[in-house]
Amino acid sequence: MLVTTDPRTATTADTGLAETTTAEVAALTQLAVSALPALEPLEARALLLDAMAAATLARRDELVDVAERETGLTRARLEGEVGRSAFQFSLFAQAVREGSFIEAMIDHAAETPLGPGPDVRRMLVPLGPVAVFGSSNFPFAFSVLGGDTASAIAAGCPVIVKAHGSHLLTSSLSFEVLRDAAREVGAPDGTFGIVYGQRAGVDLVKAPAVSAVGFTGSLGAANALRAAIDERDEPIPFFGELSSINPLVISAGAARARGEQVAQGLFTSFTGSAGQLCTKPGIAFVPTGADGQAIVDSIVALTVDASAQVLLNDRISSSFEQISGRLRAAGGSEIARATGTSDGFAVAPTVLEVAAPELGAELAEECFGPMLVIARYDSVDEVEAALWRIPRSLTTTIHLEDDERSIVEQLEPVTRATSGRVVFNGFPTGVRVTWAQQHGGPWPATNSQHTSVGVTAVRRFLRPVAWQNAPEWALPAALRDDATGIPRRIDGVLTLPAS
Amino acid sequence: MLVTTDPRTATTADTGLAETTTAEVAALTQLAVSALPALEPLEARALLLDAMAAATLARRDELVDVAERETGLTRARLEGEVGRSAFQFSLFAQAVREGSFIEAMIDHAAETPLGPGPDVRRMLVPLGPVAVFGSSNFPFAFSVLGGDTASAIAAGCPVIVKAHGSHLLTSSLSFEVLRDAAREVGAPDGTFGIVYGQRAGVDLVKAPAVSAVGFTGSLGAANALRAAIDERDEPIPFFGELSSINPLVISAGAARARGEQVAQGLFTSFTGSAGQLCTKPGIAFVPTGADGQAIVDSIVALTVDASAQVLLNDRISSSFEQISGRLRAAGGSEIARATGTSDGFAVAPTVLEVAAPELGAELAEECFGPMLVIARYDSVDEVEAALWRIPRSLTTTIHLEDDERSIVEQLEPVTRATSGRVVFNGFPTGVRVTWAQQHGGPWPATNSQHTSVGVTAVRRFLRPVAWQNAPEWALPAALRDDATGIPRRIDGVLTLPAS
Repeated sequence: MLVTTDPRTATTADTGLAETTTAEVAALTQLAVSALPALEPLEARALLLDAMAAATLARRDELVDVAERETGLTRARLEGEVGRSAFQFSLFAQAVREGSFIEAMIDHAAETPLGPGPDVRRMLVPLGPVAVFGSSNFPFAFSVLGGDTASAIAAGCPVIVKAHGSHLLTSSLSFEVLRDAAREVGAPDGTFGIVYGQRAGVDLVKAPAVSAVGFTGSLGAANALRAAIDERDEPIPFFGELSSINPLVISAGAARARGEQVAQGLFTSFTGSAGQLCTKPGIAFVPTGADGQAIVDSIVALTVDASAQVLLNDRISSSFEQISGRLRAAGGSEIARATGTSDGFAVAPTVLEVAAPELGAELAEECFGPMLVIARYDSVDEVEAALWRIPRSLTTTIHLEDDERSIVEQLEPVTRATSGRVVFNGFPTGVRVTWAQQHGGPWPATNSQHTSVGVTAVRRFLRPVAWQNAPEWALPAALRDDATGIPRRIDGVLTLPAS
Repeated sequence: MLVTTDPRTATTADTGLAETTTAEVAALTQLAVSALPALEPLEARALLLDAMAAATLARRDELVDVAERETGLTRARLEGEVGRSAFQFSLFAQAVREGSFIEAMIDHAAETPLGPGPDVRRMLVPLGPVAVFGSSNFPFAFSVLGGDTASAIAAGCPVIVKAHGSHLLTSSLSFEVLRDAAREVGAPDGTFGIVYGQRAGVDLVKAPAVSAVGFTGSLGAANALRAAIDERDEPIPFFGELSSINPLVISAGAARARGEQVAQGLFTSFTGSAGQLCTKPGIAFVPTGADGQAIVDSIVALTVDASAQVLLNDRISSSFEQISGRLRAAGGSEIARATGTSDGFAVAPTVLEVAAPELGAELAEECFGPMLVIARYDSVDEVEAALWRIPRSLTTTIHLEDDERSIVEQLEPVTRATSGRVVFNGFPTGVRVTWAQQHGGPWPATNSQHTSVGVTAVRRFLRPVAWQNAPEWALPAALRDDATGIPRRIDGVLTLPAS
């Protein structure tokens, strides 16, 4: 029997859930294949996504209750996250109705410079059943009810989730929410599945019927899954969101003009959700000199006064201590450590300091939890060089004043090359879910060009099919000559539906 | 010194070209990185692509001369292929000017159901230098002057090509064409590079500065490159077009109504370019009974009367004999073999026959060259079952009459699931280069969702970057508020430029 642990007290309880067997995994993936045709019509997907949004909101309190016990995250944070999950389902429903993501294209038969060309029509179709591996730190928005699930359904793909071992009961209840939503709109049972246990996760990615994997988690877990996928006869895409240090740069001008405000924002950003966010700023570049020192002093004061923070599980808590030790050994000098205590899997928010020229990959190891490394710099050249030296990230943040354009110009090549989102005068935590969002970055931030936040996440689970000289009746509705209400590219010209 | 071989005579000659050293490969990849900024403006890419098209056409005769000696392909075929290469460059120039492929999106700061949302803007930016490995069978359109090169430049990525060992001098001359085009429009030298030799190819995919690989060739060569890529510290995408059997189905109605026409078309399709096309129909499903037998008889007669055909190189010629032997051993009964002779690396066009229920993966091994396996079937059920049993393909073709819709309905799920292009009443060879084209398919046809023919090939070499709350002056031109002349999605609404 699988157990659940309350990280606030380290007490465990039986979940009543058993590890899914190899035979059960195989049956679930076959059932998922049988659900594909029902998800073919765009309107069916949209109705299902709407139902998923409504079902999620309807059970918000229940979901938050169980997640609070399993994660130790605050109710306010968890309530917001349930809202975000529901919003994601609704946003994807909108995107499905808008329909441009299927990339319908029609090239009529024509004389071309290379001779007569046949009629060719193309659209994106679902890849097939998608396996989803959520993360410990977002029990809703990056788990069973998360963006991978929403975007796979929008693509027309049935979903089988591997329940995260750190929130099994939350996963089980979330799955009930999805199953009920599917039943309400008449979607087949194979639309959603869930498996429990590490071995079942490996069975899942090896199952021939599984067509793609969406993953959010650690590099180590990703490598283990990658190895299992490599044993398949047929390779499948593995979309992973992995590891990120998220450097943040405070300019001399910003330090002078609004150092205290930036210091408070930075403290909130690296300690929010106990520092367990993939977009947590892990390194802050602060200028040497008095203005920079004032920022450091503020952060130190806020940190020393803080309480210890409860982390999601024992493993994350031990890793925090181990990685903290490695960062100190690599030259990070401890300048602040929280003095308040807490029970359970609690660790003390900590700030280390280093000179920017000393900053390398060893001091840029991601430390999941309330840890900040402050790198003091004398010149923007030092910042630029350090940004090239450290691992790539989901985000880079720059605080600067309007009269410091030359700093942006100097840092633009490195920020664009080394991260997927560049934040100005704000903080990287708090990711807006919207069309233009990009939550990904060069390796090791992610292992693929496109990832799981924002509407374009849907593209991961689609593949193109072209029809050549097909009779009208043999074409999917979206590719017939008559108007379909979705944007299409016709003979090379992008054409919007009449509104 | 590397040698070139005339496959029509099997005579070799020195090329004057040396294998590129490891140090030279490293220097070329660094030079490529330095060329990135010059390819940033869309208009710079379009002008370069226009110049590439013009330079290719201007040297058509010279290119055909050398390729004829190195490949044994006919002048008519090679002239058409040079035209296709030039057309591809022009088509990508148009696509770059149209600009929708960079997917510019703007979400203005707004109140959202989840609270205040920051301004987020996103577009696709070049991945970085791209390594291109062309194929032996298309010395222009899938080689130095091919679709991978064109789409990478359209994406803003410098290109380094590994010269194919089977057409080294063609590659060298093609590279001159590209280099001259780049110089003409003032693009930096790092825009294009070329390396020679197997070891240099491995060095290339391992070079830290290389960001993606485009490959067209055999499964074996792909696996060797994949293993080299797996040794990198940072993984990079590997887009491969690999292996395809391209089943073709002739319905009872089509056999009755136009059997002779289909037979002649099929003979031309499997023997054109000596059967060395990735879209060659390798298996034809022909009904049992008199109408089907008439088709088989026609193909047998055409084949027996044919001459032996010169293949591209010694390796392909030996493989043809080996695989032919395996197909016979697996139960393929030889019903026709060309009787005319030829010099050099020549093989005899061959037709095998089997009963459809006997057709499995062993009889569906791709045999590059003029080989056709005819599978005789009693019922559409037999065809459907066989299509699920054999490896996935780039294409599936169906010949049928208008009153046979039920056949399409029955085969639609399997054709869509197992191929990337479904051809009606035609032949899969001869791929129209256009927006809606899809030249890819499930593994082992390709190893990725998107491949190298058609405008959407460009998407492989791009990655998204988002800017959050960036001041207007810090944004790329395509993401500023003022109109830019390209389609953009603004606050979720796809918006076309005023025409």
